[in-house]
Amino acid sequence: MVQCSVSLDDSFAALSDQTRRGILERLGRGEASISDLAANFEMSLTGIKKHVSILEHAGLLTTEKVGRVRSCKLGPRRLQDESAWINAYQQMLAERLDHLEAFLEHTKGNE
Amino acid sequence: MVQCSVSLDDSFAALSDQTRRGILERLGRGEASISDLAANFEMSLTGIKKHVSILEHAGLLTTEKVGRVRSCKLGPRRLQDESAWINAYQQMLAERLDHLEAFLEHTKGNE
Repeated sequence: MVQCSVSLDDSFAALSDQTRRGILERLGRGEASISDLAANFEMSLTGIKKHVSILEHAGLLTTEKVGRVRSCKLGPRRLQDESAWINAYQQMLAERLDHLEAFLEHTKGNE
Repeated sequence: MVQCSVSLDDSFAALSDQTRRGILERLGRGEASISDLAANFEMSLTGIKKHVSILEHAGLLTTEKVGRVRSCKLGPRRLQDESAWINAYQQMLAERLDHLEAFLEHTKGNE
């Protein structure tokens, strides 16, 4: 679970903001320009560009300049390592709860 | 996907640090005191306490003071909302790729 740690830092940090998750959800419905996103989120172009840059750095979206318009679309990152990390956490937590339950059963049996 | 957004901010931010993920992985093998964690991660007590506090705030671990020792264990948060968000993202990304593929097929057919 330690592999890809720097990259997990970037992706989890990118996901830790409601507007950035909103941008990804918006791009899930199709490509959008920086101006479209600024209008959608009622935010300045500078503010949106900052969020887009963090998402792009984390590999969660790509941008392409066509003429004077910068268009954004999802990908290429598929969040598979992130998903695997969370699954492993859930597995660990379930095991800890099983241990606790077994301990409580054992304690009860000894009363 | 907008529900629980503040709480998703906290949990994704808590997960965006290699040491904090390491602390959760360590607690997956059993409870540990702050001093144990400081020794494991070769970090000052102050540094570890800061990480533990962020994880506790996000509901990823709980602490309990027994005598002079503060013990940490996993939970109660199960990261189900986080898992659901990532699954939805993966679904959206797959749909975008399907659209792209269909578009390319269509373009190819018109050549």
